[in-house]
Amino acid sequence: MEIYFVRHGIAVERVNGLDNPERMLTKIGRKKTEKVASRLKELELQFDLVLTSPYTRAQQTAQIFIEAGLSQNLQICNQLSPEGNFIRWWEDWFESAQLANNSRLALVGHEPDLGRWAEILVWGESKDRIVLKKAGMIGVEVPITGSPVGRGQMFWLTPPRLLL
Amino acid sequence: MEIYFVRHGIAVERVNGLDNPERMLTKIGRKKTEKVASRLKELELQFDLVLTSPYTRAQQTAQIFIEAGLSQNLQICNQLSPEGNFIRWWEDWFESAQLANNSRLALVGHEPDLGRWAEILVWGESKDRIVLKKAGMIGVEVPITGSPVGRGQMFWLTPPRLLL
Repeated sequence: MEIYFVRHGIAVERVNGLDNPERMLTKIGRKKTEKVASRLKELELQFDLVLTSPYTRAQQTAQIFIEAGLSQNLQICNQLSPEGNFIRWWEDWFESAQLANNSRLALVGHEPDLGRWAEILVWGESKDRIVLKKAGMIGVEVPITGSPVGRGQMFWLTPPRLLL
Repeated sequence: MEIYFVRHGIAVERVNGLDNPERMLTKIGRKKTEKVASRLKELELQFDLVLTSPYTRAQQTAQIFIEAGLSQNLQICNQLSPEGNFIRWWEDWFESAQLANNSRLALVGHEPDLGRWAEILVWGESKDRIVLKKAGMIGVEVPITGSPVGRGQMFWLTPPRLLL
């Protein structure tokens, strides 16, 4: 099955260097993300499920994907937030989710986590070697049985400008 | 600086399972590669140099890049052929090439070598975890001083359909 890690679009700046779960997409961030989503639709990409970090900027990004018709299913997943441990969660969740062999999932979240998780799926460990821009995407194919750690194949890594 | 590994376009089939350095791009392979090249031009990508494997299908792919205006410099590099050892060659060549910090190179060659070399630059070793389709591309940023092995950052991986 295919997992697409999607970084949220451009959001308003931090205040005093502090992150805030409520930070929203800027007007430009929203527009760019909409263009990416509509290009993905043109490419006939369809997700069985979009899981998103609960942070506002991620939820807004996921919502744009839903509105573009890329999926009919959206769920919030706390393990995709900056404090989450997606990989551990995935191993449990996956057992019960019973996804089909050809499923496609979009996971909307944050850096540096998304790039690290992709590296862990593909190479078994993270070295922070993936550059994932805002509204950028990483595509990894993983087997649907057993742990996906170190068993993925990376087939997609796009800065958003490739999809505008 | 940025290195773009480019896999040659779709070529005519092997005969009796044997590879042949003279295999040429098919009509469809040529057309797809031309579309990719013209999209890269649209994205204002410009290469200081295109290095290509001496195999016909790679040279034709490189030539399409040149004709699309993506670079003015084309060189054949035997180390990009399926028997080549690009990484070792690179470490020597690089010293003498004196490339600028913001140089962009396109390296046209074959699988599984290109994916492996990209992995070696980025993660220090290859586990065959990158899927690189024909006319697909991998973008890796590497420092211009010292060995690039294990010091790259991957920022781009595209199946050709993203650029058609």
